[in-house]
Amino acid sequence: MRYPSRRAFLNCLGTAAVGPIVLGRRALGQNPSPRVDATALRRRIETLSGFGRPPDGTFADGVSRVAYSDADVAGRTYVIDLMRTASLQPRVDAAGNIFGRRAGTDGARPPILFGSHIDSVPNGGNFDGDLGSIAALGVLEALEAAALRTRHPLEMVIWANEEGVAFNRVLAGSRVVAGDVNADMNQVWNGITRADAIRKIGGDPTRIKEAIRPQGAHHCYLELHIEQGGTLERESIPVGIVEGIVGIDRYEVTVTGFANHAGTTAMADRRDALLAASHLTIAVNTVVNSEPGRQVGTVGRLEITPNAPNVIPGVVRLTIELRDLSAEKLKRLAGLIRERATVIANETHTSIEFTSINSSVPATAAVEVQRAIERVAGRLGLGSRRLPSGAAHDAQMMAQLSPMGMIFVPSVRGISHSPRELTHWEDCSRGAEVLLGTVLEMDRV
Amino acid sequence: MRYPSRRAFLNCLGTAAVGPIVLGRRALGQNPSPRVDATALRRRIETLSGFGRPPDGTFADGVSRVAYSDADVAGRTYVIDLMRTASLQPRVDAAGNIFGRRAGTDGARPPILFGSHIDSVPNGGNFDGDLGSIAALGVLEALEAAALRTRHPLEMVIWANEEGVAFNRVLAGSRVVAGDVNADMNQVWNGITRADAIRKIGGDPTRIKEAIRPQGAHHCYLELHIEQGGTLERESIPVGIVEGIVGIDRYEVTVTGFANHAGTTAMADRRDALLAASHLTIAVNTVVNSEPGRQVGTVGRLEITPNAPNVIPGVVRLTIELRDLSAEKLKRLAGLIRERATVIANETHTSIEFTSINSSVPATAAVEVQRAIERVAGRLGLGSRRLPSGAAHDAQMMAQLSPMGMIFVPSVRGISHSPRELTHWEDCSRGAEVLLGTVLEMDRV
Repeated sequence: MRYPSRRAFLNCLGTAAVGPIVLGRRALGQNPSPRVDATALRRRIETLSGFGRPPDGTFADGVSRVAYSDADVAGRTYVIDLMRTASLQPRVDAAGNIFGRRAGTDGARPPILFGSHIDSVPNGGNFDGDLGSIAALGVLEALEAAALRTRHPLEMVIWANEEGVAFNRVLAGSRVVAGDVNADMNQVWNGITRADAIRKIGGDPTRIKEAIRPQGAHHCYLELHIEQGGTLERESIPVGIVEGIVGIDRYEVTVTGFANHAGTTAMADRRDALLAASHLTIAVNTVVNSEPGRQVGTVGRLEITPNAPNVIPGVVRLTIELRDLSAEKLKRLAGLIRERATVIANETHTSIEFTSINSSVPATAAVEVQRAIERVAGRLGLGSRRLPSGAAHDAQMMAQLSPMGMIFVPSVRGISHSPRELTHWEDCSRGAEVLLGTVLEMDRV
Repeated sequence: MRYPSRRAFLNCLGTAAVGPIVLGRRALGQNPSPRVDATALRRRIETLSGFGRPPDGTFADGVSRVAYSDADVAGRTYVIDLMRTASLQPRVDAAGNIFGRRAGTDGARPPILFGSHIDSVPNGGNFDGDLGSIAALGVLEALEAAALRTRHPLEMVIWANEEGVAFNRVLAGSRVVAGDVNADMNQVWNGITRADAIRKIGGDPTRIKEAIRPQGAHHCYLELHIEQGGTLERESIPVGIVEGIVGIDRYEVTVTGFANHAGTTAMADRRDALLAASHLTIAVNTVVNSEPGRQVGTVGRLEITPNAPNVIPGVVRLTIELRDLSAEKLKRLAGLIRERATVIANETHTSIEFTSINSSVPATAAVEVQRAIERVAGRLGLGSRRLPSGAAHDAQMMAQLSPMGMIFVPSVRGISHSPRELTHWEDCSRGAEVLLGTVLEMDRV
């Protein structure tokens, strides 16, 4: 990538910070320029990677810090300690989200909220969520170090169960804050109820409604995140400005055949649930590829009962996930897949049932936040481009409460949800500086 | 089914036992006719079903007594206690097989060996293996009660890990006795090495070779088993005489794609291991159905890494199992499947690797044993027919050491390896009587 030299980059940053931004009672020029500590950012992401690291693994072996796991609790404790050290008086809400607050000069104004998540998928990477979470802390520390007080209160957040591996519910923590408290607290996942899982991370399921925030609760919501796709790296652009976030429809599908002996049951007499599930998996791919566009569809989880080499699979449970910026297209694709499933069930003598388990509507980033990010990147001498997000983010839920914007930084080879997920440390700190600049920029408007 | 009345059945049996069979120094007519205790047979199979029963389940909910599990150990302890009570001085060999012996009048003769197994598949039934095991004990008790001494020593056996769910090795215990000690003792399954698994059931992996028996070690091997297919029930025939047992080729297949984010990775950029595995599962079915015959092929186990709804599957491990009476056909089908796999791997940008993990050659039942079973069934007034076994049995391994024969009894609706596996109690006791009669018949020849 063609970036300005490190020195040019820092000069640029300094100039930007000393520029037109005047905050509260003091102009920035009278203080040391606020700057996110790049060394601390890296060290903390590396330390965080130890919670959920594979045995005998290194940073490069990625992380399994699934929400509500012991590793998740350990990672959260680490971050809460960092926040406490930074005098942010960390607070866990009823849904298990972690908040830390820094007062503004005008207590009547709504806070600028920014942050991300630290839960991961199984065998995930060390940048998805972690970067935005640790950078949010770095922004608050930078302002404190510069003795710079914003007009709006600033609030950082670490969202609970963003990935939705647990309980099949993506954006679980931010979903509650946006007002959705419909999740079944008795649902069991990995031997634990949702209520107990929430308690395990310090939440309180009996008071879940207290976590809801009203519309207008925030001046805006900002999130720094790795792109997770390959666009920025391919085009050598260090800053992505998210235009919108795809909607996600997730289904749990149960294919029911009949488990029988794999040696004594003639081929013609079988009701093989895996054979049907295989046809369905291919149908998902075919349907999603059947029309132009950026839509994607995935069968990512599949489990067989009884799952033995010498038994014809009796039941298969699998997930189908569809994503697109158009809610209408999501509905149409799901309809086509269901039609195929009916044919497959007839032909394989099985039954196939769909349950909609999760749906998140597409969200648009606020134009004023997009413009603020663009201005900040420009002042820092960093190229930027607008792009959609194919991944879900808590920002999607926060868009229901206030203007929302997201900053993307490049993912090497577009790899994510994988131990090989990588964002260069320079890009991490550039992203953190853009987040800091955008917080200050949005404080002005 | 059209069976003789219970009374006719018992009369028939009495007549048969008092007929031409003269054993050792005393004619049977001078003693009470030996008869397997039908009540004890049922009660013991019901008691055994408690070890590995689903929580809050009943007999009808089947059993999960996978080899080397705690339930397996508990079931084995129960059977060993029964054998001890019957003064059979139970002995566990180095491979974990349980033997019990009753002396004959001629100590120089090789024993007649008979028995089965009590391990099950996950969510299996209560007759597969259990019937032949408990009936073998009943036969020895019946002879003791009748004070009837055979010429040959009699030996009952409970084979270890017949199903091969653990360590992917069917007929594991009988395989060792037949001379195959090549299993890797360090292989890990379910968190335990094979060596420790064998120790767990009372075997001794360091002395495994001591379990081997030479050719000619037995006068013959007999096994009573449920059919597991639907032929006998369909034709209302109570006794099946096995002609031969299919060979089984089992492969473990690893499909390697690339795990990536299910939202940010365009459809065209994916290397989806599950999509490839789905094509392969369908190919197995298509290839096996592509020529006439009784061959079967099954993908029974499939596991995905990382197995999360929002991650494109990176690796899929699955098993392919092929069965037929012709070893040549097994080889040909596997070749065709591999050819398809090569095409699938190219088209899906994945790699597909095959490892042969288990192979058992087809085995023929000895004609003289088939004829003995036929004569006994005839004397008992029970219809019989010859048929092949689509399932593997320890008898397959024992056929390498001595003449072998198997007695099948009807499986309701041909269901097996399922909680709904069922053989009527009358058929169970008829099978036990045929086993007893065949032991005595073979003692004569």
